[in-house]
Amino acid sequence: MSKKVPYRIYLTEEQMPKQWYNLRADMKEQPDPMLNPATMQPIKAEDLYPVFCEELAKQEMDETTRYFDIPGEVLDFYKMYRPSPLIRAYNLEKALDTPAKIYYKFEGNNTSGSHKLNSAAAQTYYAKKQGLTGLTTETGAGQWGTAMAEACAFFKIPLTVYMVKCSYEQKPFRRSVMQTFGAEVIASPSPTTKAGQAILENDPQTGGSLGCAISEAVEKAVSTEGYRYVLGSVLNQVLLHQSIIGLETKAALEMLDEYPDIIVGCAGGGSNLGGLIAPFMQDKLLGKASPRIIAVEPASCPTLTRGLYAYDYCDTGKITPLARMYTLGSGFVPSPNHAGGLRYHGMSPILSKLYADGYLEAVAVEQTKVFEAATFFAKHETILPAPESAHAIRTAIDEALYCKETGEAKTILFGLTGTGFFDLTAYDAFLNGTMTDYIPSDEDLEKGFAQLPKVPSLK
Amino acid sequence: MSKKVPYRIYLTEEQMPKQWYNLRADMKEQPDPMLNPATMQPIKAEDLYPVFCEELAKQEMDETTRYFDIPGEVLDFYKMYRPSPLIRAYNLEKALDTPAKIYYKFEGNNTSGSHKLNSAAAQTYYAKKQGLTGLTTETGAGQWGTAMAEACAFFKIPLTVYMVKCSYEQKPFRRSVMQTFGAEVIASPSPTTKAGQAILENDPQTGGSLGCAISEAVEKAVSTEGYRYVLGSVLNQVLLHQSIIGLETKAALEMLDEYPDIIVGCAGGGSNLGGLIAPFMQDKLLGKASPRIIAVEPASCPTLTRGLYAYDYCDTGKITPLARMYTLGSGFVPSPNHAGGLRYHGMSPILSKLYADGYLEAVAVEQTKVFEAATFFAKHETILPAPESAHAIRTAIDEALYCKETGEAKTILFGLTGTGFFDLTAYDAFLNGTMTDYIPSDEDLEKGFAQLPKVPSLK
Repeated sequence: MSKKVPYRIYLTEEQMPKQWYNLRADMKEQPDPMLNPATMQPIKAEDLYPVFCEELAKQEMDETTRYFDIPGEVLDFYKMYRPSPLIRAYNLEKALDTPAKIYYKFEGNNTSGSHKLNSAAAQTYYAKKQGLTGLTTETGAGQWGTAMAEACAFFKIPLTVYMVKCSYEQKPFRRSVMQTFGAEVIASPSPTTKAGQAILENDPQTGGSLGCAISEAVEKAVSTEGYRYVLGSVLNQVLLHQSIIGLETKAALEMLDEYPDIIVGCAGGGSNLGGLIAPFMQDKLLGKASPRIIAVEPASCPTLTRGLYAYDYCDTGKITPLARMYTLGSGFVPSPNHAGGLRYHGMSPILSKLYADGYLEAVAVEQTKVFEAATFFAKHETILPAPESAHAIRTAIDEALYCKETGEAKTILFGLTGTGFFDLTAYDAFLNGTMTDYIPSDEDLEKGFAQLPKVPSLK
Repeated sequence: MSKKVPYRIYLTEEQMPKQWYNLRADMKEQPDPMLNPATMQPIKAEDLYPVFCEELAKQEMDETTRYFDIPGEVLDFYKMYRPSPLIRAYNLEKALDTPAKIYYKFEGNNTSGSHKLNSAAAQTYYAKKQGLTGLTTETGAGQWGTAMAEACAFFKIPLTVYMVKCSYEQKPFRRSVMQTFGAEVIASPSPTTKAGQAILENDPQTGGSLGCAISEAVEKAVSTEGYRYVLGSVLNQVLLHQSIIGLETKAALEMLDEYPDIIVGCAGGGSNLGGLIAPFMQDKLLGKASPRIIAVEPASCPTLTRGLYAYDYCDTGKITPLARMYTLGSGFVPSPNHAGGLRYHGMSPILSKLYADGYLEAVAVEQTKVFEAATFFAKHETILPAPESAHAIRTAIDEALYCKETGEAKTILFGLTGTGFFDLTAYDAFLNGTMTDYIPSDEDLEKGFAQLPKVPSLK
């Protein structure tokens, strides 16, 4: 049975995008400005220089430059693991008996196990170019820390990773990977920073939190000569770098003369979703096409579907700038959902604005339904997905099943962000029936909302 | 800096090989026949039917059919994760400052994490076609078991995996992956077989062995209606299926107008090496080319470099047919080297014969040197290699450094069989300096040789 569309579509090296696309350049209204936490006034690029390297601070603030050239050194780095395949899910389609055509862009075929490497390579390159002598970051689940360790090993710049202590202890292999690439990995909270010392003094047995790890990483960066801090999601610069996902996808679909009716991506801080949808959202903003674009989040951390669109801190430690975004409150502690990468109280300001303006839909799904989809997918497509990615699989399957009901042969595209090799405790819990779902009550959410910062109204 | 050869070379689906290549068809002398352990007489295909499915038993015995058509269903399965990339190691070359050109064929981008899926798909397909109702196998490190679990989930045939008990306990995540794909995983020795019961009665606390797991898997297969047994290495049929690796590699190199001067592969039972070199060895056998072909084995398990070319059992339980091969004796217990996939006392009879006839070189390397190479490779090529694969990396680097000395711009090809995500305990040991090397003494080897079976001389 010969098929017109191959299972896996790879661009050639020459066909690879040479520029990143900045979605803000085509947005009719911009996201509200970030605020300096000290003054509560809109932040300027220079305000960010002590924390981020200058080129990245400029990218963070740039609302008008539509395309940024990808530096040659970053392109060469990308060529070691990109282009990633766009895969036609023939076997999933057959198993679902759906008339829908399903495509997925698979970002898991690199050692970081996810799309995170796309921005890590870019951020590390700019840091090296500026002559910085070191970088700091934090990691929870570990993908971002691993991606940064890979990039820093390659560009030869020291990296210190503050890893949330309970992850450090529960995922020792993630730590080992980072160390193999030469990164210094410190369990957070640690005695190496004032922030860590204070927390340890208060609670010596704490397992740590992402908020605390961010505080330590930022403190280490700003207090060490020649160091800066890097972050793997939420930021505008990260969405810019991740646009490579969507640009490659669109180029591959064009070769097949295809255009998606529905685009599905999981959403934690928004790095993957923002990258995947970028060029399709451009079409939507410019009135050239009108695909449905669906963000999928965990029911246990329903930022878009049940959060408020408000100014909030990006971290639980309240030391970062404030962004206007969908948020559950920086004090909201999501239940221990197994999709660690989606347990974030906020959402990319760009995606938040697009959602507020109706360009984006959102659904929240329960994790047992997510792992049901993950297991079904693995058996038919042979890839073991990360729990985060499986949120997108769940919704893609639901849409394909809806097509079966209606008989519509829609084209569905979803982002498969990564692999689940370090998430097998979660698969075990699903298999042995001990996995539970948790949906926060309205009261739970009210508590988070009550802690939102008061922000003076801006002109 | 534009480069003629891309970093990653993928064949298109149309360019993928449609046939497997049977090296035996071009060998001037055949490997000696396998012997029936009951009669010590050459085995016939029918003798194998109770254990292997018929099509595979025929492939096992076939010395004359040069090419076998890959069934459409297997080709379709391959398309979910193949073609695998041939990668030009530009960054490794640069880091080594060598005039050599280095290419590697990367087989790790699938959920089994190695090349094992190539034969698992084929064996499972033929089993399903024969109408079998179940399969059994054993697994040590876990790659083969995972590959079989993936294939059996896809072709919808039940699978029972006997997993060496110490691996079962030390690598629970490998077990979880297999279970996620629906396989039944049993710690071996187990009370489910007579072989297991006997061993447990003798030593209830034993951690098991591959030999014992094979005995249990075979017993379960032959004692269950409609069941057969499958094996992931050593066998002729496995080398046949794995020829897809070499055929793809050669097709990709031809597109680049390249031919390797040196081909390097790690060798445990020979499944990867035999597959990688197949079409190049054909050229050598037919006098069309004369690449150096190097098998790399652990110094702790030096089958080719220090073993005897003799008839021996393929398992430690002495229930399998005997093969004439390089062997350390089926009673030889290798030290706990971290490259579990290379801890095998014997070697593919085909590769053994080619080595005996001088078509193949072999080197043995110590594991600390192997992990040094693995870490260096990871930092420059971003891929975390499996310890097994890193044996080939070690020798490829050594050859590239030798080119630096001599100034020769040789073309080196090596096989990167898989990823090291489940081997981080080993990387930890290397990083913290607790990894040791072990080289068996001549006395150790003599003990193994003394146990070789007495075989009546054949005509």
